[in-house]
Amino acid sequence: MDDRAIGVFDSGLGGLTAVKQLMAQLPHERIVYFGDTGRVPYGTRSVETVIKYVMQDIRFLMQFDLKMIVVACGTASAIALDTAKASFDLPIIGVVEWAAKQAVHVNRNGKIGVIGTQGTIASDAYARNIKAVEPKRQVLSIACPLFVPLVENGYLDHAATAMIVAEYLQPLKDARVDTLILGCTHYPLLKKVIAQFMGDDVHLIDPGVAIATHVHTILQQQDMLSVTNISPTFRYFVSDSVENFARLGSVFLQRPILELVEKVDIERF
Amino acid sequence: MDDRAIGVFDSGLGGLTAVKQLMAQLPHERIVYFGDTGRVPYGTRSVETVIKYVMQDIRFLMQFDLKMIVVACGTASAIALDTAKASFDLPIIGVVEWAAKQAVHVNRNGKIGVIGTQGTIASDAYARNIKAVEPKRQVLSIACPLFVPLVENGYLDHAATAMIVAEYLQPLKDARVDTLILGCTHYPLLKKVIAQFMGDDVHLIDPGVAIATHVHTILQQQDMLSVTNISPTFRYFVSDSVENFARLGSVFLQRPILELVEKVDIERF
Repeated sequence: MDDRAIGVFDSGLGGLTAVKQLMAQLPHERIVYFGDTGRVPYGTRSVETVIKYVMQDIRFLMQFDLKMIVVACGTASAIALDTAKASFDLPIIGVVEWAAKQAVHVNRNGKIGVIGTQGTIASDAYARNIKAVEPKRQVLSIACPLFVPLVENGYLDHAATAMIVAEYLQPLKDARVDTLILGCTHYPLLKKVIAQFMGDDVHLIDPGVAIATHVHTILQQQDMLSVTNISPTFRYFVSDSVENFARLGSVFLQRPILELVEKVDIERF
Repeated sequence: MDDRAIGVFDSGLGGLTAVKQLMAQLPHERIVYFGDTGRVPYGTRSVETVIKYVMQDIRFLMQFDLKMIVVACGTASAIALDTAKASFDLPIIGVVEWAAKQAVHVNRNGKIGVIGTQGTIASDAYARNIKAVEPKRQVLSIACPLFVPLVENGYLDHAATAMIVAEYLQPLKDARVDTLILGCTHYPLLKKVIAQFMGDDVHLIDPGVAIATHVHTILQQQDMLSVTNISPTFRYFVSDSVENFARLGSVFLQRPILELVEKVDIERF
């Protein structure tokens, strides 16, 4: 057993999808979350800048007594995971690897689609991780840069969203992928309109679910589950307004979090 | 006469609209530009964070020998101009004040519309500046948070853009404004679709044009025009990738700029 907390970070609010899954699957684990809301989004920035920001995010989290760090951000996982793993002496787990493994597991026809931010798709990280497991799978990757702003502005089920979804995803439909990785924390919020366009036969992979399941598995295997935290503590840190994050985050997690959120000057790390 | 450079900054690339106007109206002026591409956008961030970033941007520019600073970013002008003016000992000019004055000047029916980012609209800065000139004008302000991502992804003349434009601007059409301030550097790129929706009778104000005209006027009035810079120098600084900025910026300014762009670690300032 290991009662230390799990650190989770994301470019902003989206990583709370993974936190919600972790809370559901691992109700005794303490969690320290950092959301880089002062510098979100990562998906449009250069490799160099994403790596710099991710290293600052992890240096901040390393102040806490952690047993592992979960990189909930698709872009950060796709671009900076290797650098992060080589720089810190604790397990660092990214969404890309485990979403890729789950996709290979459920894929039947050999064709897997990946959608993500420009940074994630340019990195080709999903395709590399899929081919590391199964070299023969065909992977078709498409950047969907308007999905994050559409989600953040509540255009979840809007005619303009359906139009943009159809435009972005048509090549994946044409290629007849039967598995589609929603490779950015925001995209599961568009699941309904994506499923409508792609059809019921296409399996949608939510990386937040995949990573929570994997964290559960390795904590169990390595006897690192927390057993004494009956009511575990949760702490949230952000680099912009505490209030904005708490308002949206409380809706996201379906529990009040305002008193648990603190602001941090991430540029110091 | 004053041969020192004019400093211009923006949250990213958009401020080049103002630079282009300055180059056209004032061909002998040297310009030092900073685009905070590593932390763009400002329009969704809190007041506190926008002020912090703007102060860093100006501290960086103050390393150069400048005769004035132009705040080309609508959000920065709306939120942080007073703090900036109180903190530095040179003229600092923001787009809001001069776009507001131009709007009052052309407005005929007493009703002025303002569109901008969430930060700009929440600040109410345009309405305050309009009412400072003419207290009786009615001002109707609407945040259009999807316009920046639509522009940045090239959706300038797309059916989804027209749909979102119509949805955002319907209340301004209903209110029969005859003047509309495009209160964010990106919005003039949507001028065509906005004009189509609003109709030919509505006067659209481009703050980049308004600020360049104003800079021209005050340099002339105060005998601060540069006369000896026959081929003035231009320098561009950014906080993310030089290549990305140069590629888009060259298209924007219709001149090659790659060799003139440098990266700066803005968090140090």
